[in-house]
Amino acid sequence: MRLIIFIFVLLTLQNVCSQTLTVTSPGNILSLKFELKEGGAYYSIYRFGNEIIKPSRLGFILKTSPNFDDGFSIKNSKTNSFDETWTQPWGEVKDIRNNYNEIFIELEKYSSPIRLMNLVFRVYDCGIGYRYEIPEQAALSDFEIMDELSEFNLSGNHSAWWIGAYQWNRYEYLYKNTPLQKLDTVHTPLTMETKDGIFLSIHEAALTDYPSMTLKRTGGNNLKADLVPWSDGVRVKTSTPMKTPWRTIQIADTPGDLITDYLILNLNEPNKLDDVSWIKPGKYVGIWWEMHLGKATWGSGERHGATTENAKKYIDFAAKYDLDGVLIEGWNIGWDGDWGANGDIFNFTKPYPDFDINEVTLYAKEKRVKIIGHHETGGGILNYEKQLPAALDYYTELGINVIKTGYVNHGQNIKRVDEKGETVKEWHHGQYMVRHYRKVVEEAAKRKIMLDVHEPIKPTGIRRTYPNMMTREGARGQEFDAWDPNGGNPPEHTLILPFTRLLGGPMDFTPGIFNLTFNNEKPGNRVNTTLAKQLAHYIIIYSPLHMAADLPENYEANLKPFKFIIDVPTDWQETVVLNASIGNYLTIARKDRNSEDWFLGSATDEHGRTFNVPLNFLTAGKKYLAEIYKDGEDADWQTNPYSIEIVEEEVTGSSILKIRLAPGGGMAVKFKLVD
Amino acid sequence: MRLIIFIFVLLTLQNVCSQTLTVTSPGNILSLKFELKEGGAYYSIYRFGNEIIKPSRLGFILKTSPNFDDGFSIKNSKTNSFDETWTQPWGEVKDIRNNYNEIFIELEKYSSPIRLMNLVFRVYDCGIGYRYEIPEQAALSDFEIMDELSEFNLSGNHSAWWIGAYQWNRYEYLYKNTPLQKLDTVHTPLTMETKDGIFLSIHEAALTDYPSMTLKRTGGNNLKADLVPWSDGVRVKTSTPMKTPWRTIQIADTPGDLITDYLILNLNEPNKLDDVSWIKPGKYVGIWWEMHLGKATWGSGERHGATTENAKKYIDFAAKYDLDGVLIEGWNIGWDGDWGANGDIFNFTKPYPDFDINEVTLYAKEKRVKIIGHHETGGGILNYEKQLPAALDYYTELGINVIKTGYVNHGQNIKRVDEKGETVKEWHHGQYMVRHYRKVVEEAAKRKIMLDVHEPIKPTGIRRTYPNMMTREGARGQEFDAWDPNGGNPPEHTLILPFTRLLGGPMDFTPGIFNLTFNNEKPGNRVNTTLAKQLAHYIIIYSPLHMAADLPENYEANLKPFKFIIDVPTDWQETVVLNASIGNYLTIARKDRNSEDWFLGSATDEHGRTFNVPLNFLTAGKKYLAEIYKDGEDADWQTNPYSIEIVEEEVTGSSILKIRLAPGGGMAVKFKLVD
Repeated sequence: MRLIIFIFVLLTLQNVCSQTLTVTSPGNILSLKFELKEGGAYYSIYRFGNEIIKPSRLGFILKTSPNFDDGFSIKNSKTNSFDETWTQPWGEVKDIRNNYNEIFIELEKYSSPIRLMNLVFRVYDCGIGYRYEIPEQAALSDFEIMDELSEFNLSGNHSAWWIGAYQWNRYEYLYKNTPLQKLDTVHTPLTMETKDGIFLSIHEAALTDYPSMTLKRTGGNNLKADLVPWSDGVRVKTSTPMKTPWRTIQIADTPGDLITDYLILNLNEPNKLDDVSWIKPGKYVGIWWEMHLGKATWGSGERHGATTENAKKYIDFAAKYDLDGVLIEGWNIGWDGDWGANGDIFNFTKPYPDFDINEVTLYAKEKRVKIIGHHETGGGILNYEKQLPAALDYYTELGINVIKTGYVNHGQNIKRVDEKGETVKEWHHGQYMVRHYRKVVEEAAKRKIMLDVHEPIKPTGIRRTYPNMMTREGARGQEFDAWDPNGGNPPEHTLILPFTRLLGGPMDFTPGIFNLTFNNEKPGNRVNTTLAKQLAHYIIIYSPLHMAADLPENYEANLKPFKFIIDVPTDWQETVVLNASIGNYLTIARKDRNSEDWFLGSATDEHGRTFNVPLNFLTAGKKYLAEIYKDGEDADWQTNPYSIEIVEEEVTGSSILKIRLAPGGGMAVKFKLVD
Repeated sequence: MRLIIFIFVLLTLQNVCSQTLTVTSPGNILSLKFELKEGGAYYSIYRFGNEIIKPSRLGFILKTSPNFDDGFSIKNSKTNSFDETWTQPWGEVKDIRNNYNEIFIELEKYSSPIRLMNLVFRVYDCGIGYRYEIPEQAALSDFEIMDELSEFNLSGNHSAWWIGAYQWNRYEYLYKNTPLQKLDTVHTPLTMETKDGIFLSIHEAALTDYPSMTLKRTGGNNLKADLVPWSDGVRVKTSTPMKTPWRTIQIADTPGDLITDYLILNLNEPNKLDDVSWIKPGKYVGIWWEMHLGKATWGSGERHGATTENAKKYIDFAAKYDLDGVLIEGWNIGWDGDWGANGDIFNFTKPYPDFDINEVTLYAKEKRVKIIGHHETGGGILNYEKQLPAALDYYTELGINVIKTGYVNHGQNIKRVDEKGETVKEWHHGQYMVRHYRKVVEEAAKRKIMLDVHEPIKPTGIRRTYPNMMTREGARGQEFDAWDPNGGNPPEHTLILPFTRLLGGPMDFTPGIFNLTFNNEKPGNRVNTTLAKQLAHYIIIYSPLHMAADLPENYEANLKPFKFIIDVPTDWQETVVLNASIGNYLTIARKDRNSEDWFLGSATDEHGRTFNVPLNFLTAGKKYLAEIYKDGEDADWQTNPYSIEIVEEEVTGSSILKIRLAPGGGMAVKFKLVD
């Protein structure tokens, strides 16, 4: 651990009612100013001395007064410097440095009774995290928070990329890019660019027993925390001592620096699992896309997808091409009928009669292929939690240690039995569901089961603490291309995700569709990319579990480009962003965790692009064979998406890679160390 | 020369009144579509198949009809491919590739008499140039153009960086950044960014006997050529055969790619001078800044700057520190009185009595220092042209072969004697002055004299044809900081120039002020940068003649940072843009033309920045000693501009340079090859 000189300035008593504390980041880039103004608590952030977050309110409104909103004085404060490098068991990078200066502030409010509230600010060079603590105190044990007052008072009407909160589904929207002042209430991460080319992203870390924070614009450029409420209007049901999640603000000079900043992971608790040897990233295929195309069904019947025979076909395919797993959706009783409206009909230990789960798991074991289990809950939490231990044990006994979960359900529609015994309906993002998602992670961890959660709570870095929480959905995945009546995901979609949703954590986007137009199945739909861009997604979208989402026959018919999917790892030593423009283009290089090989992905929106990218990330003095998968010169996502050129070149760290991306196109490269 | 496959598509007769010709760039990135619509001529530009310039009008209105505006038919067209690499005698890069596909279109108009007009389009991967030719024809010899119809019909309301045309001075304004639809009439280069992150810049090349093209918004996103008129309202006085300047449109994926694209030079005629051995880039000091500070005067009197003694002091200083030249302003009769209003009083062969030009030039010769001559005309063209041969001969006889010229004069105020013998007043940018500036270049070339033109016509690449046309002003230089009542150039100014004005050619910005605040001389003014940013300007602003603009005593008092100015070359083998954001920041590396050393400059606007820049431009396998001049950790242009840290590090092409720029700060690095 390096020694850091800690700068701590206490400017006391600017006037009788004002007290100010300041902390500067280790590299003297950001500074955090905390102040009490007439008893109200505020923070502001300066970057190189320029105010980038203007004075922003802190505090809470409780159900029973007195509130944590004014009348504060500083009882005590202490500072601390921290510098540690820790290792991820798997991830987008192996080693992460956690280097910050911290200030811990104890506030008290001279109401009757006296109330205590603490604040912790961690100031990094690339961002700030802060959290509240309500410590044990005489006059407060169980309590209910009606509003969190945290503000993010931005310094200008920045350009913002956002999805709205409180809509019909979970997070599966196309991002909008508008001036800040055009947004109302939005999910985080909320990413912004100032007119001077500085990039910010607001999110939260370590969301464990608290509602999701959405952001509501309260006027001008000021955003305020808007906690997703319980059905009774209370935001948080809690008791002392408690700590909130960290409110995080990443700040960087380039959009690429947002991607390679690990503030959110750093603010989570270290790994709680002793043994992580059973946690393994990988690639999978599965019985899935054929349902989206309408060629098969989740429910029983003639076209039932999850049959013993079909499962064996996928197992054979995975074994042949050395893919790690096979997902099987629609294997269990409950899919017939309106399961989306009433998830209570799912049975998690009872397969359909045409799916011999013992035969399938045995066959998979022989072929050294993992079966990825599936729990679609339809949002029926009461039903799922009742079955959860048995459901997890059932899979464990079958040797299945990866489960994809699902919570397809709309709006404020998650049934709960409340304190009075009445059935009420909750949001996906409220404290009730946050608790549920966490419970499943913990129960799975006990049984050494990895998770891939669809319709999840947003990622806030829990994977650091529970590395079995591998990946999740929580954004518009590629399946929208199969059936969205509005035309699917436009080319820019995957050029926005890495700078927004993916700042929270990995995403199971399900890339790799090779039959882009599927005119036989869904003539009105298609995938809005070139073939080469599908390959680029394996690099620019990070996930420790990546699907090869298309049907085996479409890969068998295109074995040359499929080789990239076979070769690409899902666990990385290093990640380097080579160029980046939000919503426009992105080029990332990543080094395999288990070899000396590097991989590169580059992708663009609907505009063609050309770049010359230095390959200086390659080890100096070494030679590499570059296997380049690029758009053909006549490629175009609309008119000629299948045109792909695959070439080999010998390169070194001194080489320049010429990248030419077709409209809606991409490039993928494997750099194999040869000498 | 490489063989290029040329794609030429002729789509005839889409309808009876429409004829279309298409040419694609060598790398199939841009394509140019020419079409006749109901007899009117239009072009449009596609990039990767997406329309980036919508159909835009072509043609002329003449003083005597019939006009070149409609009734056209295509008489003939031919195509040609060109690929050649040529060498600059000096410049920002040694070798430039000129690679385009061309279409030459002969139009005829069946008026009575028949009129002929040709169009040439050169289509590059990074831009397009087009020009008109009015060939010899029966019914047209001398003629006058009242309006050029050329349009640039942009595809959106792009973000634009611009200075307004037809204002009080020449080009010395702060750039504005607004949506395209907020501008009225502007100078070129006009640089824009689309909402999808594509960068465009419109300018012209080879402006030799034609007025400057300004751009007027005619509604929506459409710009139209607005040629600067003669005093009688005529725009162009010309005769057949004639060729217009090239209208140029640079198009790139990054702002840095605009800087390293040499479209404008490529569209100029090759070097016309047989011997260029006498043309030498270099650095100079001079009797100049002390006048701006008010410590000395141009005119005679007690504080006269251009005395024999003072000149010798500068010569001694230049000799001691191996600087190439000494500029002496205010040496000749004419500076007393209102010279700005009446340049006719300047005498270009008569020194002031206290300036012994023979003694000074002899002293300079002994010390191996060049004297840079000075011709301030005050815009008195009649007076200057009358004396020009004698004035140039006078300097030649004294051994002076570099002249700085000046044309300080405001608005439409250049006196001319018109065809009727009456005195009229012309703009700096009209055809009259374009002819004058060209005449001086040619007269100087005959005598082997290099030019540094202040208050010039804008640069359009003439330096390719006449490499004695070294550098010029034509933008707000650093002298505004000495006396601008509005506070001088803000920190962003030199982060806009490289992407706008400098796309036309080099600029004599006069960087290197070390006494940034000069409270003794001008307490209300200052230079709005840190000291390190002054050094960075020598790299980010390209000029073959760079001034070390401050007073010798300020350098003598700061010899450590001054070493960078002593070391930095002004003639380059290569230029690489490492990062770039218009108005925000810029980092450039350049390789010395005469050694294996590299130099790097990085600068920011009023915001501090951090970057990690790979040094892959250095030769692989070699070691370099990096001499780094960087902002101190506590530096800030407003509060602490002098804080600078100078460190040495050994680096290779695999190293990453950590750049930390203070608000308004910069960094300069010399990479000296050691092994």
